[in-house]
Amino acid sequence: MHELIDSLFIKVFANDALRQKRDSAIVEIGGGRIAFTTDSYVVNPIIFPGGDIGSLAVYGTVNDLSVCGAKPLYISLGLIIEEGFEKKALERIVASIERAARRAGVQVVTGDTKVVEKGACDKIFINTSGIGEIFYIPNEKKICSGDVVIVSGPIGDHAISVLSKREGIAFKTTIRSDSAPLNGLIARVLKASSKVRFMRDPTRGGLATTLNEAVERKSFGILLNEKSIPVRSGVKEACELLGFDPLYCACEGRVVMIVAQEGTQRVMAALRRDVLGKSASVIGAITKEYKGKVILHTAAGGKRIVDMLTGEQLPRIC
Amino acid sequence: MHELIDSLFIKVFANDALRQKRDSAIVEIGGGRIAFTTDSYVVNPIIFPGGDIGSLAVYGTVNDLSVCGAKPLYISLGLIIEEGFEKKALERIVASIERAARRAGVQVVTGDTKVVEKGACDKIFINTSGIGEIFYIPNEKKICSGDVVIVSGPIGDHAISVLSKREGIAFKTTIRSDSAPLNGLIARVLKASSKVRFMRDPTRGGLATTLNEAVERKSFGILLNEKSIPVRSGVKEACELLGFDPLYCACEGRVVMIVAQEGTQRVMAALRRDVLGKSASVIGAITKEYKGKVILHTAAGGKRIVDMLTGEQLPRIC
Repeated sequence: MHELIDSLFIKVFANDALRQKRDSAIVEIGGGRIAFTTDSYVVNPIIFPGGDIGSLAVYGTVNDLSVCGAKPLYISLGLIIEEGFEKKALERIVASIERAARRAGVQVVTGDTKVVEKGACDKIFINTSGIGEIFYIPNEKKICSGDVVIVSGPIGDHAISVLSKREGIAFKTTIRSDSAPLNGLIARVLKASSKVRFMRDPTRGGLATTLNEAVERKSFGILLNEKSIPVRSGVKEACELLGFDPLYCACEGRVVMIVAQEGTQRVMAALRRDVLGKSASVIGAITKEYKGKVILHTAAGGKRIVDMLTGEQLPRIC
Repeated sequence: MHELIDSLFIKVFANDALRQKRDSAIVEIGGGRIAFTTDSYVVNPIIFPGGDIGSLAVYGTVNDLSVCGAKPLYISLGLIIEEGFEKKALERIVASIERAARRAGVQVVTGDTKVVEKGACDKIFINTSGIGEIFYIPNEKKICSGDVVIVSGPIGDHAISVLSKREGIAFKTTIRSDSAPLNGLIARVLKASSKVRFMRDPTRGGLATTLNEAVERKSFGILLNEKSIPVRSGVKEACELLGFDPLYCACEGRVVMIVAQEGTQRVMAALRRDVLGKSASVIGAITKEYKGKVILHTAAGGKRIVDMLTGEQLPRIC
């Protein structure tokens, strides 16, 4: 259904901003360039280890702006609330939104609330849109063989946190969502190096989907080294038990970068100096050999194609 | 519940943009000033005489920007769709959004879709956020005794259209929603006169709520003349039958203006030249006599206070 809708949108609203299929639209206004993005959050449960629907909504929008090279400034907040939703829970979520906005350094400047009758929505849905000022434009056209692929930290924590809470599964260690604002981390990296050529946050569909989008219809591919991809042991265990692949599990506080080889050291140093990037890792490289494909050099020593989608995306993970 | 939420928001997110309680936030970015707004649409039914949830969402956001003196430019689109929602209906709504955007001269530049399981939302909810370039700032501080109050057309059409469709009530004449983009009309008026000191679109809560907000904690009041307030006979009949007051019924294609007396003629001429303003009417005046209050000079010759709220707002009207 998602693919159907995506293609319907791009077909119907034919414009350059949409066709770029970025996390934010880059648009001209008042003689300057800004980034503009929107996301609706329907995560179930609304509170999970490491976050809640409120902080998730703020950080999600902050990150969509940040990976487009924008400094996030203003956020809008649209709430749809089911009648009878407890006042205490609402206050907790609103307080969480405020804390998250403060942490990320953005202002919630406009909002809207709709209350629908019991049964017409599941507790609370939140839309956050955001605008930011562009200060860096990654030059994706320069991506070439030998560039390195970097991820800022362990993958899949968010998906596993939400799923284990939803299904009531207890693992040895509680996995906390990685949900966090990436604007500070990204600004530090871009200050340290001008060699970043691609940035995305691997949310729905995970690292595998993000990297496949990066190589789609391109003259290069990516060779990943499974051993260097950071995955917490708790996430690995949970994935084995649930039948998931961590490569497809959503993150909400990680950034994937493609960086020119000569920039690797500076980028890695900047990432590792930040608490959000302390486990950053070079996980692969751009190669001409596997045009348009993502190939995994497995821990066992073999190679396999990492496809765009190996099944349905997990529902209501964000 | 709405009031509770509004006060919670303003208390928690203490910033100037929010405190202004406008339809859009006016914010600085890249050295310029832009308007930024958001609205979620949960209207039931999703298709009604004169519009549907798609066109309503686009025009609602366009109008929130327009009444703040901004030229609407870019729209974001966040869809929450119930699993099993028919593809045909979705295509119809998306086509309606595209037509509405084209009519209003705005671009849908970014979007997001979430699908939730059957029963977790009622068919489809739409969030539209929008940004526009400020070209006129109505100077509300200049409002003074003798200024006139103008409405651009008949009130209450939208609410009655949605309600009669929802309840399956047939009136002698089908009332069509007034839902329409006001940016063209407003631009024409502001080109013709610089004497417009206040603009709002009387959506939820209708004309009565909008005017009460205009006089709230102010040193002036408004004296309305019931005979000059345009209300279609079909809306009057429906309101009598349903026990509603047209003054509280939502419009989605009307603008209320407060204009300096010397600007009245030019503003009225500009309004009436446009198909959306051809039934514009001077409906009252600013007075020092009823400080902070809206008073209605009734058709019967008496006077009554038009309160902020005489009951619950109608649910899911937009």
